[in-house]
Amino acid sequence: MKTAIIRKEHFNSAHRLNNPKWSEEMNKQVFGKCNNPNFHGHNYELEVKVVGEVDLDTGFVMDVKVLKELIKINVLDRYDHKNLNLDVEDFKSVNPTAENIARVVYENLLKHLPEGLELTIRIYETERNFAEYPA
Amino acid sequence: MKTAIIRKEHFNSAHRLNNPKWSEEMNKQVFGKCNNPNFHGHNYELEVKVVGEVDLDTGFVMDVKVLKELIKINVLDRYDHKNLNLDVEDFKSVNPTAENIARVVYENLLKHLPEGLELTIRIYETERNFAEYPA
Amino acid sequence: MKTAIIRKEHFNSAHRLNNPKWSEEMNKQVFGKCNNPNFHGHNYELEVKVVGEVDLDTGFVMDVKVLKELIKINVLDRYDHKNLNLDVEDFKSVNPTAENIARVVYENLLKHLPEGLELTIRIYETERNFAEYPA
Amino acid sequence: MKTAIIRKEHFNSAHRLNNPKWSEEMNKQVFGKCNNPNFHGHNYELEVKVVGEVDLDTGFVMDVKVLKELIKINVLDRYDHKNLNLDVEDFKSVNPTAENIARVVYENLLKHLPEGLELTIRIYETERNFAEYPA
Amino acid sequence: MKTAIIRKEHFNSAHRLNNPKWSEEMNKQVFGKCNNPNFHGHNYELEVKVVGEVDLDTGFVMDVKVLKELIKINVLDRYDHKNLNLDVEDFKSVNPTAENIARVVYENLLKHLPEGLELTIRIYETERNFAEYPA
Amino acid sequence: MKTAIIRKEHFNSAHRLNNPKWSEEMNKQVFGKCNNPNFHGHNYELEVKVVGEVDLDTGFVMDVKVLKELIKINVLDRYDHKNLNLDVEDFKSVNPTAENIARVVYENLLKHLPEGLELTIRIYETERNFAEYPA
Repeated sequence: MKTAIIRKEHFNSAHRLNNPKWSEEMNKQVFGKCNNPNFHGHNYELEVKVVGEVDLDTGFVMDVKVLKELIKINVLDRYDHKNLNLDVEDFKSVNPTAENIARVVYENLLKHLPEGLELTIRIYETERNFAEYPA
Repeated sequence: MKTAIIRKEHFNSAHRLNNPKWSEEMNKQVFGKCNNPNFHGHNYELEVKVVGEVDLDTGFVMDVKVLKELIKINVLDRYDHKNLNLDVEDFKSVNPTAENIARVVYENLLKHLPEGLELTIRIYETERNFAEYPA
Repeated sequence: MKTAIIRKEHFNSAHRLNNPKWSEEMNKQVFGKCNNPNFHGHNYELEVKVVGEVDLDTGFVMDVKVLKELIKINVLDRYDHKNLNLDVEDFKSVNPTAENIARVVYENLLKHLPEGLELTIRIYETERNFAEYPA
Repeated sequence: MKTAIIRKEHFNSAHRLNNPKWSEEMNKQVFGKCNNPNFHGHNYELEVKVVGEVDLDTGFVMDVKVLKELIKINVLDRYDHKNLNLDVEDFKSVNPTAENIARVVYENLLKHLPEGLELTIRIYETERNFAEYPA
Repeated sequence: MKTAIIRKEHFNSAHRLNNPKWSEEMNKQVFGKCNNPNFHGHNYELEVKVVGEVDLDTGFVMDVKVLKELIKINVLDRYDHKNLNLDVEDFKSVNPTAENIARVVYENLLKHLPEGLELTIRIYETERNFAEYPA
Repeated sequence: MKTAIIRKEHFNSAHRLNNPKWSEEMNKQVFGKCNNPNFHGHNYELEVKVVGEVDLDTGFVMDVKVLKELIKINVLDRYDHKNLNLDVEDFKSVNPTAENIARVVYENLLKHLPEGLELTIRIYETERNFAEYPA
């Protein structure tokens, strides 16, 4: 049977929800106050779950120090204290909903993980709203 | 691959655990202090997890505003600041354990969800005791 | 300068807010859903803060094991899994608001504390509503 | 002796730290990544503490429903899902640090409180950075 | 469909990460500050998830009082306020990583569970580092 | 009126409570399981509260980046992943109770703070046991 490790990190960003293919009215109607053109923001909590076999010599699924560094380079350094819509390439044409952030972080991290490990991403936009990919 | 969104809500209710088919002694023995005939209570935390495909136009599995409203009408307005045993039809003949509350909330919400979405309910009776349905 | 120790405990109780000198309408108007005659309930969190000098031999303001036992006997054993209005003498003629619970717990514990120690009580009715006595 | 009640609320906003009297370099040096011209954001937690005498008829220092409404009108409706620098009059000429937000919220709420009550504001910018006014 | 109950407990222990087959240098390189020969420690949080059918008479997957007692005897009494490496037989030849603690607790508890129930263990070493077995 | 900022940090350490002037029996009787000669450990949470005037140019009581660095050098680098009794000079002749840790951290940080600022230290040994100095 396999084992999971989970590492929790956080970043603070501004964002807005908007679909450029829609009219201003349509965006306001669908996204409500999340559509504010001047942005709002969140303390995002990010849970990265890695599933695999435990190495007999280390007792690790994967060294958490290595995982932390991967998250730092591929997510935190690029998203923290940034405006997701304006400053982050990943969301130039992707609406930064919690669902989309979870999937984009998944794709960014998966390619850097050692082979044979499975990945799940959970993003907390607030303590009461969060998303998970894949589910 | 599918994505999940989770919305967390809470309600404050009185309840007692009791099986009317059993004697007073049997109930006291099985349910202990949870059988107090004058009731006790909890700050219940409710996590509603909805799994589905992300809509390409909105970036949503489902609009959280709609989900919040469904939870409000079908759970919070009916359970919050109520006595689950005395005031809530759902528990007239169902013992309000965390397990049963999770299943009953599942059944109440599932019929109002858009088709094709999967649902899981987690109920925290306290920070240290919780139940999930389906598991 | 003095030092404080704080011990956090919890209890789960049913209660309702009601002033027997008022009409039913007046009670409903003032206390709203908290006036439900069938009660509702909470996971109360209790913080007991004791301020004094640190004993040079133990490094303690007061032995936390002793403090825990005082709280258990004078508060938890009497309030936990009880109906505050019906089962607890302290609230027979006192409305169990967070403010009043804080003061009543203060009075119950103070008489059992070693002399020379100061006491403050904080009661969380929910994570978002709490009271402190004395302030 | 007096009693305190505390009500916790939250709002999600974008902000940046910046002193318009300083050069861009000076601002970057002092405020670091918090100076990002495209803003970042936070889930602000707001604790409003009100100290006074307990009313003998209600058992309340102040009705929490009234306090919630005051906070909603004077703070949440004006700050939530807003850009503090661009959308909120209060910070047109005030740098939105946690310290300044705490003082501004204090001033906004104090004038609406019943006489004789004392007020303290605590603002959590993150779980690990917070400010209190007055201290 | 099945239902899960989850019980959360905690214990405070000292530990160090070390592989006795490796040189001191190798251990220091792999385990870093977690290899400190004088130990460090954690407030471990333990989540025990039990999945099964709900009993129609009790409304329980399993009586939480029984589960608490099993955890107390088989885990807490043996690990709490102990040095995992020096005081606990289970880790005499097993490196006490979060991954290994999760698996060892799983094996200790599974043999005492009523038949037909499934078990998952989650161990929080800190709020930001945790492991789950089986995953 | 003055303003406070609070910065929360954490460290993971092993410790035991022991008074070398007492017999083994006396130590066991007073400190119970906290006297385990092989140590146990905690995830300590440290809250550093600094009170002063807000600088009109920065909006800061004190730059949190500077405060973080002071805490890192004077506390975290010296206590984290250490055995407080064996590895840390501060506790060679001081029993590492929460009360004493709070006072020692206070003394270590106060001498590095800019003049005119007041300091309070809160140490969480667990979520349910904490100490504050000065109180």
